Parts: sequence; C-alpha cells; structure tokens
Amino acid sequence: MYRESTQIRVRYGETDRMGYVYYGNYAEFYEVGRIDSLRKLGFSYKTMEDNGIMLPVLSLQIKYIRPAFFDDLLTVVTTVSQLPKTRIQFSYEIFNEKNELLNIGNTELVFINTNTNKPCMAPDDFLKAIEAYF
Amino acid sequence: MYRESTQIRVRYGETDRMGYVYYGNYAEFYEVGRIDSLRKLGFSYKTMEDNGIMLPVLSLQIKYIRPAFFDDLLTVVTTVSQLPKTRIQFSYEIFNEKNELLNIGNTELVFINTNTNKPCMAPDDFLKAIEAYF
Amino acid sequence: MYRESTQIRVRYGETDRMGYVYYGNYAEFYEVGRIDSLRKLGFSYKTMEDNGIMLPVLSLQIKYIRPAFFDDLLTVVTTVSQLPKTRIQFSYEIFNEKNELLNIGNTELVFINTNTNKPCMAPDDFLKAIEAYF
Amino acid sequence: MYRESTQIRVRYGETDRMGYVYYGNYAEFYEVGRIDSLRKLGFSYKTMEDNGIMLPVLSLQIKYIRPAFFDDLLTVVTTVSQLPKTRIQFSYEIFNEKNELLNIGNTELVFINTNTNKPCMAPDDFLKAIEAYF
Repeated sequence: MYRESTQIRVRYGETDRMGYVYYGNYAEFYEVGRIDSLRKLGFSYKTMEDNGIMLPVLSLQIKYIRPAFFDDLLTVVTTVSQLPKTRIQFSYEIFNEKNELLNIGNTELVFINTNTNKPCMAPDDFLKAIEAYF
Repeated sequence: MYRESTQIRVRYGETDRMGYVYYGNYAEFYEVGRIDSLRKLGFSYKTMEDNGIMLPVLSLQIKYIRPAFFDDLLTVVTTVSQLPKTRIQFSYEIFNEKNELLNIGNTELVFINTNTNKPCMAPDDFLKAIEAYF
Repeated sequence: MYRESTQIRVRYGETDRMGYVYYGNYAEFYEVGRIDSLRKLGFSYKTMEDNGIMLPVLSLQIKYIRPAFFDDLLTVVTTVSQLPKTRIQFSYEIFNEKNELLNIGNTELVFINTNTNKPCMAPDDFLKAIEAYF
Repeated sequence: MYRESTQIRVRYGETDRMGYVYYGNYAEFYEVGRIDSLRKLGFSYKTMEDNGIMLPVLSLQIKYIRPAFFDDLLTVVTTVSQLPKTRIQFSYEIFNEKNELLNIGNTELVFINTNTNKPCMAPDDFLKAIEAYF
C-alpha cells in the first residue's frame, strides 16, 4: 500500500454562498493529492504525459461528511492499495486542522497511450517505484 | 418519475490540457441540471434557501464514458426517481450533440433547516409540485 | 462597431461565502460573451483554433460596480469597436435582470500562428465577416 | 511598502486546452497571494470578515506576459505600496521557477462594514501591523 499526505489551504473562490467549499471542488483537491503523491514517489505525472501516456479518470465517488471552510488548512491523504496495471485506483480522505474527517472518495483512472489512444500498461519506472510499497 | 433536460455550452476555461472538459467540472454541470430541473417544476432553489432550507450534497458518483470538448453543446438529463423525504436523489446523464452518452452520475442531498442546522422534510410546495409526476 | 448579447445564468458554484459571484469568475463570463459574439457573427473560435490560429489574452481589466448573485440571469454585452489586425480588443458590460450595470471590462487578445508561435493577422474569413459592421 | 511571496503549484484543472493556465484563474492566484500576505503580517482576513468587515474587489487589472503550465511552481509576489484607508491596493507579480515574469496585476478593494453595508476604515489592528512597513 502506498500512502501520502498533501496540504491544501482553502481559497476564498472555492467557497460558495453556503459558506462551505463547493462540493465540486473536491475533485480538484483529490487531483492535487494524486499528483503530489506521485511526485513524492519520485514520479512526475507531467513528464509521463509529455512522453505520451495520459491518465484520464474513469470514475469518481465522494461521500461528504463535514464541510470545509474558507482558510481551512486541509490534509488530503491519498492511498493506492492495489498495484496498478492498465488501471489505477486512488482513494482519498480529507481532514481539517482539528483532524475531523470531512470526506472520503476514490477515483479509477486508465493509462492511455496518446499515439494509439488505447489503454496501455502503467509505465515501467512508475511500477518499479510503487512496487516497493507492496 | 420527474425528468428534465438542460443545455450547457462548454466554456474554454472548463477544458484542461488534455483538451477534455476537466473531470471535476461535471459536478457543476450536474448542479446546473439540478437547479434548472427544479425551476422547470416551478420551484426556485434560491427562494427555498433564502427561506431557511438548504440542500447540501451528501454523495456524488460519476462514471466517465466519453469526454466533452470545448464548445460542445451538452444536454444534461436530470431525473428524480423517488419521492423525496428528508433526502433527495438526483441522477444525471450528459449527452453531446451527436447524442453520445458522455457520463452518468448521481447525487444524494439532504434538506437542512438553517436555523436548527438539522435535517428536515422537503418543503410542502416542492412535494406538491413533484408528486404530480409519481 | 460589432456588438452582441449573451445570457448567463449564475451557478451556485460561482458564488463565494460573501454570497456574491466570485470576482475571478467574470473573466470566464467575458470569455463566454466573446466566443458567443463570434459564433453569432458566423465564426467558430474552435474551428479557427483547430486550424492553427489561437488567440491568447494579453490583458484584462475589470471594474466591479455591483455584485451578481446566485441564479441571476445575466446579460453580457460584448463589443468590438476597432477592426482587428494582429490584435483584437473586446469590451464587456454585464447587466442583471433589473438592467443594473454590474461591471465593465475589456480584454486585448493576439492572433498566434500555432506552427510558428508568432503573431499573425486575423483570419480573412473573420475579417470579412466583421468588416460589415464597420 | 509591504511585500510578501507565496508559492502556488499549478493544478491540472487550472490549465485549458491551449495547455496554459486559463487566463481567468490568475484572479484566484492573486487572492491566494493577498490572503497569504495578510496572514504573514499576523492578520487573518477570515477573522476580520467573521467580525463584520468584508473586503470586496473594486477593480482588477492583469497584463499577461508569459503563460504558466501544469505543475509549474509559481511565486506570487504581493505588494501593498500605500497605507490603506477605506480602500487598499495590492499589486502582484507572478514568476515561474526559472524566475521569468509571467504576469503583473493589481486590485483595489474596499473595506465594507457588513452591518451598514457601507465603506469603513481599515481595522485598527491591521493598520497598526502594516504601518510598521511604511
């Protein structure tokens, strides 16, 4: 299992008239956790994409438990609990500074070769890096 | 069952470097479908909220099938298939102009009395309006 | 002078905790007015970009007069008051349903040939279409 | 003069199909710089707003020089060069990791008493904190 944490400060523009972080913005917070967890593994999502493999999202699920508010310093905990093949699953938990669980979610993504536009195996260097955690 | 359709033109700012609509933006498209379907029922979400009942989202699920692109004219089909009580479920299908299904999703929301901050029954006028479809 | 109007319904996710449309979202509303005014001229911004000319923004100015609120039906009035060469200027006024002026703004954009990455003249078909208004 | 720096990592969802950060997103980056520069002065924008003074934006100007890209680590330099009264001006410069200047901008904001909905002087504790820099 590979797990990493990322901090995000809530921006004013991310709140809505309810005073909460708008429910649609957590997908971007999950993306930040996802990319950052790869970076901390020594792997650049951007370089992979520049080299012809992209990773579009197949599904997203979020269960909202408590709201986040403007200026909250959130922690996104990102977990990969299965070794990826052509697909990869990430799960997420977001906590506030009081360590309250705000929401949980998960996404499934697929490695796509941008030349063929077809699914492909996760890149070797990424597999090698993440296998150390399993 | 209550069902309504809403059109959305994809904005440039809603695309990402993949050239697709960013996966996180569909939650807002679903919101547009949701609010518009209520409006077409003769019910103003805004007035309800101004009168002390808000409707935060408890869960969101999206299954992405095909991407949407800049300038696409999308149709969001919003469906309420069960009579709401303190909670309401909406399901969504988004189609492009070729009538291809791009994604399906659903959300569960809860009616909250903003004075007590506790769940409450859906407002009477809303229930009366939607009951005609069941 | 070429002038067109476009309607935009304010989304919940576009408001902030002040209850106003977040100040940063008007740039996207201006984009919607810009693209729509070109479409009404018979010109597709998307096709132009697919054909190798893009139009990045060089400058943006906004003067905020009154706020917009959730569910407001806004009118963006987009104006081109000078014939474009390698650059084009758009100005914008946004009104609410009471016909109150909410903000005024303008943007300057430059036509860029995506092969050379250098400025180029506005496309002939676009110039022909817009010249009729001058 | 008061000046502070804030780092922002560009998110995937902030890019557009041109591969650049969407021009409308810089307003939010400026907001992040603004709020963070106040925090580093020992002043919480959130607490001020909770205490009945809000700070809506009156004007925004941006001059775009170079684009930012996905995953870039940006530095927002925020400057207050005049002592605020009922209004405050912030100017911004955004740099990438190569220390290239990407854009410059400024905003004017007004202190509003949320009870009276009228302009008011900047709060005393804020003035005291910032006067040390002038």
